[in-house]
Amino acid sequence: MTKYLISPDPNDVRLTERVYGVDQDGLPVDTTVTVERPLTLFLNDQEIVTMMTIADYPDCLAVGFLLNQNMLQHDDVVTDIDYDAEIETVVVRTERETDYEQKLKKKTRTSGCAVGTVFGDVMEKFEEIELDPSAELRTSWLYALSKKINTTPSLYLEAGAIHGCVLCEQETPLIYMEDVGRHNAVDKIAGYMFLNNIKPAGKMFYTTGRLTSEMVIKAVQMEIPILISRSGFTAWGVDLARQANLTLIGRARGKRFIALAGESRINFDAEPEAIDDEPRGTHRKAASNIEAS
Amino acid sequence: MTKYLISPDPNDVRLTERVYGVDQDGLPVDTTVTVERPLTLFLNDQEIVTMMTIADYPDCLAVGFLLNQNMLQHDDVVTDIDYDAEIETVVVRTERETDYEQKLKKKTRTSGCAVGTVFGDVMEKFEEIELDPSAELRTSWLYALSKKINTTPSLYLEAGAIHGCVLCEQETPLIYMEDVGRHNAVDKIAGYMFLNNIKPAGKMFYTTGRLTSEMVIKAVQMEIPILISRSGFTAWGVDLARQANLTLIGRARGKRFIALAGESRINFDAEPEAIDDEPRGTHRKAASNIEAS
Repeated sequence: MTKYLISPDPNDVRLTERVYGVDQDGLPVDTTVTVERPLTLFLNDQEIVTMMTIADYPDCLAVGFLLNQNMLQHDDVVTDIDYDAEIETVVVRTERETDYEQKLKKKTRTSGCAVGTVFGDVMEKFEEIELDPSAELRTSWLYALSKKINTTPSLYLEAGAIHGCVLCEQETPLIYMEDVGRHNAVDKIAGYMFLNNIKPAGKMFYTTGRLTSEMVIKAVQMEIPILISRSGFTAWGVDLARQANLTLIGRARGKRFIALAGESRINFDAEPEAIDDEPRGTHRKAASNIEAS
Repeated sequence: MTKYLISPDPNDVRLTERVYGVDQDGLPVDTTVTVERPLTLFLNDQEIVTMMTIADYPDCLAVGFLLNQNMLQHDDVVTDIDYDAEIETVVVRTERETDYEQKLKKKTRTSGCAVGTVFGDVMEKFEEIELDPSAELRTSWLYALSKKINTTPSLYLEAGAIHGCVLCEQETPLIYMEDVGRHNAVDKIAGYMFLNNIKPAGKMFYTTGRLTSEMVIKAVQMEIPILISRSGFTAWGVDLARQANLTLIGRARGKRFIALAGESRINFDAEPEAIDDEPRGTHRKAASNIEAS
C-alpha cells in the first residue's frame, strides 16, 4: 500500500451520498454519487469567490486558490483560517493587509475553468519563472506512479465523476487530492504545500484531466517542472509548456505516453511495450521525416 | 451518415494544429491538438467576460452565454453580432438597453465551471420552469443516439481533449457542438437554437461530460426535459434534476445506463443486454429492498 502524506478518503460519509434510481432494464439500482457544496472564500474582510467543492480540505483549497490567483504571496504570514461548515464559508486572514477589488473586476473564463485574472499579473509571473532544467523523469517512475495512483482507493473508483491531481516525487505519489473541478484539486495541493512547507524541488505533477492552458499555468506557477496526464493536450497548453520549458506528458496509459514539451528531462529507462489505438491524428514518424519542435 | 443541422468540422484547419514530440520509447511522433483561443464578449458597450474557446461558432457562443446567464431574454431582438477574429472579440447588440454592472460583480465558480451568477437570478428562474411531463425517452432512441454520436467525425476522435454536447430529437442528433469547456459547447447549442428559432419541445440533450449542477441548471433553463451523459453524476446535480423533474440519465454506454431522476419519462422498449463493470458503489437491488427516490 502506497503511503501518502494525504489522500482521498472515500469512506468519509460527508463526501458521498447513496441515491436510488433505475437501470437500463427498469430495475431498481442504488449508486454512490459525490457531494458538491458551495464554499464562499473571504480573504481578510473581502469576499473573493464562491466555489463548488467536495469540501474535504477547505483550508487547503482556500489557501491554494489565493496562491494560484496571486492574492497570497509565498512569504505571506497566514494568521488564521476559519472554516464554518454551517454557513459554508472559509476566511483566510493574513498579517499583510489585502485589497483585490480591482483584480476581482477582471474575469476570465478558462477552458478548464477558473474565475480570476488568468491573463494579467498571473501571466507576468508565469514569464518570470524558470523551471529546474536538471529535473529528471524516468519512464520507470512514470509507469510505477500511474499504477499506484490508479489503484489508490478514491472517490473516482467509488463514485466516478471527479478529477484527481497528485504531487509525486520519483516513483512515490505524496499528495492526492480529488474534487468536482480539477482546478480545485490543484489548488488544494498548492494549499497543502504552503501550509506544510513542502517545496516544489524534485516534484512532479500528475493529473487525470486534460492539459489545458490553465493546468500548465498552474504547474509553472507552483514551480513544478514536470506535468503528466492520462488525458490529452490543447494547443495553447503545449505552447505555454514549451515557452516555460515545462516537461509535458499526455495520454499516459499503461506503458505509453506522448511528450510534447521539455522532452530533454525524460530518461527512457523502462522496457518498451507494444502500441495500440490513439486518436486518429497521431502518427509515429520515421526520424528523418520529423520537423524539430 | 447522420444528417445534422450543424456538427463539428474536424477538417477546419483553424481548429487543430499538428505538433511534434516523442513517445514512450523516445521515438518522434506527431499528433493533432485542439486550438483554444481567448474570446472577449461584449454586450452592447459592456465587457462581459473573456472565454477560452475553439472559436468555431463565436456568434452562437456569445448569444448562448448571454442567454444562459440571463443577460439576454428570449424575446430580446439581437440587432447585430460582430465577431472580429483579429482582436478576438465578439460584440452582441440588442434593441433593449442593457447594464449588468451589478451582476458582473457577483462571481461563482462552479464545478463544471462558469463565471457569473449561477445562484442569484439563475436559480430563481430555475424554480419557475416546468418541464414537459409528457416528453418521452425510448431506450431504443438512446442506444441509437449513442452509436450515431460516437461515430460522428469530431475533434474528439481527431485530437481528443474536448467536450461534446448534442441536441437530439427521438433517435436523431440535430446539433453537435464541441469545445474545450463543456459549458461552451452547451452555450453554443443554446445560441444556435435562439438564432435559428429552434424550440426545446420534444428535444433531448446528450453530453460527454459529467452531470454536475451546472449541466442540470443549463438543461432546465433551456427547457429540455431529458439530459443524457456517458459520464457520471454529482449529488447536487441529482438533487436539482429531481427538484425540476428533469429526466437524468448517466453512465450511458452501449446498451446500459442509470437514471436517477425523472424515470417516468423512460419507455424501456429496447432489448436488454448483460451488465459488466460499474463504479464500486453501484448495486442492483432486489425490488423489495429499494427506497423510493
